[in-house]
Amino acid sequence: MKKILVLHGPNLNLLGERENKIYGNLTLEEINARIKKFAQQNEIEVEIYQSNHEGDLVTKIQEARRKIDGLVINPAAYTHTSVAIRDALAVLGELGIPIIEVHLSNIYRREEFRHQSLTAAVATGVISGFGPTSYLLGMQAVLEKLSEKNN
Amino acid sequence: MKKILVLHGPNLNLLGERENKIYGNLTLEEINARIKKFAQQNEIEVEIYQSNHEGDLVTKIQEARRKIDGLVINPAAYTHTSVAIRDALAVLGELGIPIIEVHLSNIYRREEFRHQSLTAAVATGVISGFGPTSYLLGMQAVLEKLSEKNN
Amino acid sequence: MKKILVLHGPNLNLLGERENKIYGNLTLEEINARIKKFAQQNEIEVEIYQSNHEGDLVTKIQEARRKIDGLVINPAAYTHTSVAIRDALAVLGELGIPIIEVHLSNIYRREEFRHQSLTAAVATGVISGFGPTSYLLGMQAVLEKLSEKNN
Amino acid sequence: MKKILVLHGPNLNLLGERENKIYGNLTLEEINARIKKFAQQNEIEVEIYQSNHEGDLVTKIQEARRKIDGLVINPAAYTHTSVAIRDALAVLGELGIPIIEVHLSNIYRREEFRHQSLTAAVATGVISGFGPTSYLLGMQAVLEKLSEKNN
Amino acid sequence: MKKILVLHGPNLNLLGERENKIYGNLTLEEINARIKKFAQQNEIEVEIYQSNHEGDLVTKIQEARRKIDGLVINPAAYTHTSVAIRDALAVLGELGIPIIEVHLSNIYRREEFRHQSLTAAVATGVISGFGPTSYLLGMQAVLEKLSEKNN
Amino acid sequence: MKKILVLHGPNLNLLGERENKIYGNLTLEEINARIKKFAQQNEIEVEIYQSNHEGDLVTKIQEARRKIDGLVINPAAYTHTSVAIRDALAVLGELGIPIIEVHLSNIYRREEFRHQSLTAAVATGVISGFGPTSYLLGMQAVLEKLSEKNN
Amino acid sequence: MKKILVLHGPNLNLLGERENKIYGNLTLEEINARIKKFAQQNEIEVEIYQSNHEGDLVTKIQEARRKIDGLVINPAAYTHTSVAIRDALAVLGELGIPIIEVHLSNIYRREEFRHQSLTAAVATGVISGFGPTSYLLGMQAVLEKLSEKNN
Amino acid sequence: MKKILVLHGPNLNLLGERENKIYGNLTLEEINARIKKFAQQNEIEVEIYQSNHEGDLVTKIQEARRKIDGLVINPAAYTHTSVAIRDALAVLGELGIPIIEVHLSNIYRREEFRHQSLTAAVATGVISGFGPTSYLLGMQAVLEKLSEKNN
Amino acid sequence: MKKILVLHGPNLNLLGERENKIYGNLTLEEINARIKKFAQQNEIEVEIYQSNHEGDLVTKIQEARRKIDGLVINPAAYTHTSVAIRDALAVLGELGIPIIEVHLSNIYRREEFRHQSLTAAVATGVISGFGPTSYLLGMQAVLEKLSEKNN
Amino acid sequence: MKKILVLHGPNLNLLGERENKIYGNLTLEEINARIKKFAQQNEIEVEIYQSNHEGDLVTKIQEARRKIDGLVINPAAYTHTSVAIRDALAVLGELGIPIIEVHLSNIYRREEFRHQSLTAAVATGVISGFGPTSYLLGMQAVLEKLSEKNN
Amino acid sequence: MKKILVLHGPNLNLLGERENKIYGNLTLEEINARIKKFAQQNEIEVEIYQSNHEGDLVTKIQEARRKIDGLVINPAAYTHTSVAIRDALAVLGELGIPIIEVHLSNIYRREEFRHQSLTAAVATGVISGFGPTSYLLGMQAVLEKLSEKNN
Amino acid sequence: MKKILVLHGPNLNLLGERENKIYGNLTLEEINARIKKFAQQNEIEVEIYQSNHEGDLVTKIQEARRKIDGLVINPAAYTHTSVAIRDALAVLGELGIPIIEVHLSNIYRREEFRHQSLTAAVATGVISGFGPTSYLLGMQAVLEKLSEKNN
Repeated sequence: MKKILVLHGPNLNLLGERENKIYGNLTLEEINARIKKFAQQNEIEVEIYQSNHEGDLVTKIQEARRKIDGLVINPAAYTHTSVAIRDALAVLGELGIPIIEVHLSNIYRREEFRHQSLTAAVATGVISGFGPTSYLLGMQAVLEKLSEKNN
Repeated sequence: MKKILVLHGPNLNLLGERENKIYGNLTLEEINARIKKFAQQNEIEVEIYQSNHEGDLVTKIQEARRKIDGLVINPAAYTHTSVAIRDALAVLGELGIPIIEVHLSNIYRREEFRHQSLTAAVATGVISGFGPTSYLLGMQAVLEKLSEKNN
Repeated sequence: MKKILVLHGPNLNLLGERENKIYGNLTLEEINARIKKFAQQNEIEVEIYQSNHEGDLVTKIQEARRKIDGLVINPAAYTHTSVAIRDALAVLGELGIPIIEVHLSNIYRREEFRHQSLTAAVATGVISGFGPTSYLLGMQAVLEKLSEKNN
Repeated sequence: MKKILVLHGPNLNLLGERENKIYGNLTLEEINARIKKFAQQNEIEVEIYQSNHEGDLVTKIQEARRKIDGLVINPAAYTHTSVAIRDALAVLGELGIPIIEVHLSNIYRREEFRHQSLTAAVATGVISGFGPTSYLLGMQAVLEKLSEKNN
Repeated sequence: MKKILVLHGPNLNLLGERENKIYGNLTLEEINARIKKFAQQNEIEVEIYQSNHEGDLVTKIQEARRKIDGLVINPAAYTHTSVAIRDALAVLGELGIPIIEVHLSNIYRREEFRHQSLTAAVATGVISGFGPTSYLLGMQAVLEKLSEKNN
Repeated sequence: MKKILVLHGPNLNLLGERENKIYGNLTLEEINARIKKFAQQNEIEVEIYQSNHEGDLVTKIQEARRKIDGLVINPAAYTHTSVAIRDALAVLGELGIPIIEVHLSNIYRREEFRHQSLTAAVATGVISGFGPTSYLLGMQAVLEKLSEKNN
Repeated sequence: MKKILVLHGPNLNLLGERENKIYGNLTLEEINARIKKFAQQNEIEVEIYQSNHEGDLVTKIQEARRKIDGLVINPAAYTHTSVAIRDALAVLGELGIPIIEVHLSNIYRREEFRHQSLTAAVATGVISGFGPTSYLLGMQAVLEKLSEKNN
Repeated sequence: MKKILVLHGPNLNLLGERENKIYGNLTLEEINARIKKFAQQNEIEVEIYQSNHEGDLVTKIQEARRKIDGLVINPAAYTHTSVAIRDALAVLGELGIPIIEVHLSNIYRREEFRHQSLTAAVATGVISGFGPTSYLLGMQAVLEKLSEKNN
Repeated sequence: MKKILVLHGPNLNLLGERENKIYGNLTLEEINARIKKFAQQNEIEVEIYQSNHEGDLVTKIQEARRKIDGLVINPAAYTHTSVAIRDALAVLGELGIPIIEVHLSNIYRREEFRHQSLTAAVATGVISGFGPTSYLLGMQAVLEKLSEKNN
Repeated sequence: MKKILVLHGPNLNLLGERENKIYGNLTLEEINARIKKFAQQNEIEVEIYQSNHEGDLVTKIQEARRKIDGLVINPAAYTHTSVAIRDALAVLGELGIPIIEVHLSNIYRREEFRHQSLTAAVATGVISGFGPTSYLLGMQAVLEKLSEKNN
Repeated sequence: MKKILVLHGPNLNLLGERENKIYGNLTLEEINARIKKFAQQNEIEVEIYQSNHEGDLVTKIQEARRKIDGLVINPAAYTHTSVAIRDALAVLGELGIPIIEVHLSNIYRREEFRHQSLTAAVATGVISGFGPTSYLLGMQAVLEKLSEKNN
Repeated sequence: MKKILVLHGPNLNLLGERENKIYGNLTLEEINARIKKFAQQNEIEVEIYQSNHEGDLVTKIQEARRKIDGLVINPAAYTHTSVAIRDALAVLGELGIPIIEVHLSNIYRREEFRHQSLTAAVATGVISGFGPTSYLLGMQAVLEKLSEKNN
């Protein structure tokens, strides 16, 4: 059974009560429920983790490198400022693990400084702008990548 | 029955024989076959169009504004240079039609000038880096957006 | 009888149904009617042409060089990206034909990338921000320039 | 009877004896005569004021806010350096008074630093490059804007 | 018999009547005559094509990829703005076809924005500043490259 | 009784022994004593918290959103690098809680990179350059804002 | 008895009728009344001066150097453009007179060009974003600075 | 008898009591005495004028255009911000009047923003860094230029 | 006996299994063994600490300020993003403690954003590009600095 | 008999043993042999000179100004850094001597800093990317330029 | 008897036959004659040296440090590119020797890259734009600086 | 016996009498003595060379390519300006010879333009900020690199 790690970056724990026009009104719990349902339907194991700490996210990514088949990460604010997360992701990239960077909002429609992504260059691909659906599309992308590898 | 337009920008007609390391070795025909199969499975109508002409793409987008429920566009080279396509897309955006910008390759892993997208800021969302799968994820994203609207 | 060519760039064919807050709610046909009425009142011949194709606009400008006394052009999106139109306009400039660049909206009130004009530097002058009136002021400016030449 | 204020910025009092290739050889008096004639023909009241002082221009604009129906301003050198004039103009803009920025020369054909306008972003529109005619086109633009408001 | 395609970009059809100080006073026809004469003398087949359309140039380059031994291209204005032509040229580059970018004028002596070339980075080499001779030197460069390949 | 949270960012725990010329020679404890005294005098409740961890500060801000009436924050080094703290502050801003950014030193007198503030754009206001007094002025500003709301 | 000079820069005379969303709806007279009341309560002498002229402000600052104990200045538009005011303020700074730069609005929430302050680098500190309260906090900051000097 | 105008820009009236390390400890009066003595020794007429107002300096330069043989100007702070003074100087330049820009301090040793001079490009030459001697060298440079013209 | 603290920044715990071409194939444990051996040979005490948390590294540096004679730090990803670590290092710098910044790889041979170091400006010196040897050279540099101080 | 000077800049003496993938594997001697053979075939005199010294190249160019009919120069590293060589070349340019700048590699395919050429703006034309053939094309370009002058 | 060294940078040996519109038509010999005459009249010893080699100029400056009382240097092209000359000049500056940078032309009227001076920041002052007179004013400036030191 | 070349760039011959606060007060001779002593102790041959000429350094590096086992170079001012030295170093790099760039001062603590190194990107590693010890650490780094190669 394939295993996917889903990582939520800083402030995503407040979803549903924060800037609803941008992020939608689902709470993180509700989004996680959708993620789990998707996992169940596709018969994959999923682990979900949220942290406001850059260092925690780095450590979590590191620890996952021997355990998971794919990573879906919404680095949130750290997208634009964290070389440390970028370097941790690069380790997984070297091991051939698909890394999907997702964003709830379309980052190109927001402040200029959010157009830059330090992490995208080491990801397999990026999905941005579909609200909670971004996570599900990201998981599906992992599955596609894994099935490509098997062929 | 919902209708989706899939637009391929310049040089995508050469897929399969061009820079395979970046774009994969499927031809545009093979990709289109996948797109059609996806449409069939999801019971949607799909129209596919490729052009090397910026003006043709503008006109095609304009004409679609009264006919389609969603747009999946890979503007290719025009992503980085065409304000005209951006302006045409904005018309569809105003009408509430979901616009998904897709890229075969992860544009953040390529030359600096490809990191900028003139069109992304008027799209609903962006999917980048999954090869032909980018189109299918894009179509699925359209379906999700449409089902959200119905609720 | 003096002859003026009026050129409309990409997406202007959708006027009246597109971003009305920026461009007003007159259709291109209605604007053209005003242009023709102005021509009639001032006893000048007018030709009007719209295209979404950069190349068409270049060719149209080239062909006009032996036939017209003045040019009023709204390059729209190509204002910011087309060196080819700039080069074509420069030919007319060398022949002493007045070239008036017009814009419906005040480009300084919009996105940063619209503040730059590649074409303005080879135009006689620029009129920006008066809606359809921009075209009429542009035609009047041509007439003034021509009457200056005769003195 | 409508009232228009025409403001001339610094050094425009020397017109006719200064850089004639750029500004033409009419003196400011001659230009003012044309402006007055235009006003008479269109049955509007006109006040004309020139100053080399940024502060005077700010004060003049402020005082005009309760008295005039439209403003035609050639900020000259202050176009590129005065936030104070911009802020004063914004007050008139809030009151719905049309503000037309005019330039004798086409600022896009001159030194790079003259391509930027701090004031244009708060103006209704900009007319640039037609010599003294720029003022007359500016006055006509005011009249058009006022007649639009009445409809 | 070797075959070379010579491509002329936008506005080059007006050579001889446009900005003679920069481009010389030969017409495109006269330049083409020289190109043909050179081809005859060197016993190579030559096809010549001019277009003002970016898309046409892209398509022409694409179609040539199975037919020609070398390409001489003067992208003119599109040198500085066309990623689409760059991408099309890259296909030929991958196939080992020599691509020579030529310019009539020395682009380093002109406006700053003409110093940048989007296409040069995918060309074999660049020849700039020798008027019509640039084309002939470009054809000779193709011949040299081909004879190198045979050794 | 109103409640204010005072947050101290990284390295502020070393105040009094670090770069005294810039920060003064009071220790953080002494500053906190002043803050508490001010709170007592003004009959408000105050909580004070210092952390070197970006993530801790984010979490602390989040948790405060249901409990406090105002926030005084000296983000110190994170002023210039933390989008995560900015995003957390934006949540409080949305809830109408006054957020006062304070700095001991005048950041405009220091290294260029300290002139930029990522957090200031989501704060209510900024007070910079008054040593420990910056905190007291910040608390007073909170009180003023709250009394404005009550009127 | 301590003496403070309060300087208002250009366009502040229009407060209350200008961009109320940004500046609040108090008139300058009402703000001055608050300033005077604060002075009375704190037993300090206060002089208040407003000018739209950069030169007047420079001269006023110069003349104050022998007469005042502290300066509260809202340079308004000149914040971003006046080296002359900066140089005048530097004289007071050398004499040890506290200089507090205040802004009604939070300049970091406004146009990019308002984020830069030429004058802040020679001020003692900056207070920005509290409406009329900014002036009162500024005066209090002067008092604190003076009492620090006496210790 | 030749006539030279010496212009002092803003804040120079405070020389001798302002930033002595940069500007030296002579007062403006003492410097003016030296200038007059130099004039006497060289049998030229000299007029000296200082203003803190940009507009006054513009007007003074304008009025001088029919009366003087040479101009020595220290634009001080306006060096870096005044297009209006630049434009006024350009009038004198057109009339062939030597314009010498002088600075007491070496502007290249100071803050980055003082390295730029808007006025230098329309001056005949620049002398910077010699304290009061800069003015005397400037006057001598005028005399040299005038004697060159006579030959 | 002298005491040196050796700090390893984020992701360095994965050495030996991460991007071996850049970082070599020694694990962190093996590197630490070399560091300890060097310490033994030179009769110095050494403490080694690794963390993925910016805040932990800040705290560790702070706590060391009263205990150590020298610091060898490889800030890894935080080199390019952490003002907080810079500020913490500055405290040690003020106390005269040598701070040696080391890097395994030559940061000038890598991505552009890695050429910038926020921390280097407060370090005593920088050693970059020698793999694990960088640490040993760094320790030796500390010893040299300490022996210089004793003379 | 016409005379051409061929100048080789720094490090070109090592050709054939240096970065062969970029520069090819011919030695400078072998390239010079080709140059001489070309000269013989075309009945022109050729002088060849290589130096690693910027000053030597300047002096050589200066001395050639009275002796040669054309210059072919590969400034190598000095292309990007030498204003002195640019100034020396400008002297020849003023005398109407054709100056051909050549490069072995296509400088647009290399590091960003090699895309800039300080010398190209004073050359007649540039030939880049053809290995040793660049020199021969350069010589031929000189001959063409000279024959143009004779007509 | 005071001794001054006058240094001429690259290409100045060609004065009189090079770009006369910019540099005038005196030869270097004639300029040197003026310099010597000035020296004689002022009873100072003068040494004059010209070189096209950056290294020679560096060495000459170094050797002069024990022998001269003042330096007048026209670094010509090296003004904009030589950190080595800057560093050599800094040695003289430390010894209190006046260093006058002179330019024949006004560098602010020329190409953008000539507006920057690497050497000016270590010079005492700069004199630019007076042709050969620049040198004489420079020598006079040295004399003034020396007489200041004696008082 | 291994051989190392130590190269000193421009102005280093003046060490000990130049900017002692930055470079220390040892003369170059004294530093060379330390270098020789280190060589003797480690039983390696050392050659030391200093030049103010960029070209000499290029030539010296070239000649060393067949003779040495390692290079320690302090390019001094040429660090920031010499592409020629970079290209020469690249030849040695290709041959696998360790190249250590050293600096006496920490270049990150100095002027902004000294933060850039053109040469570092082709060096094996960089050591900066340790005074004369930088050379000895550099030599030791060479020895480490060589012993790595032997394993």
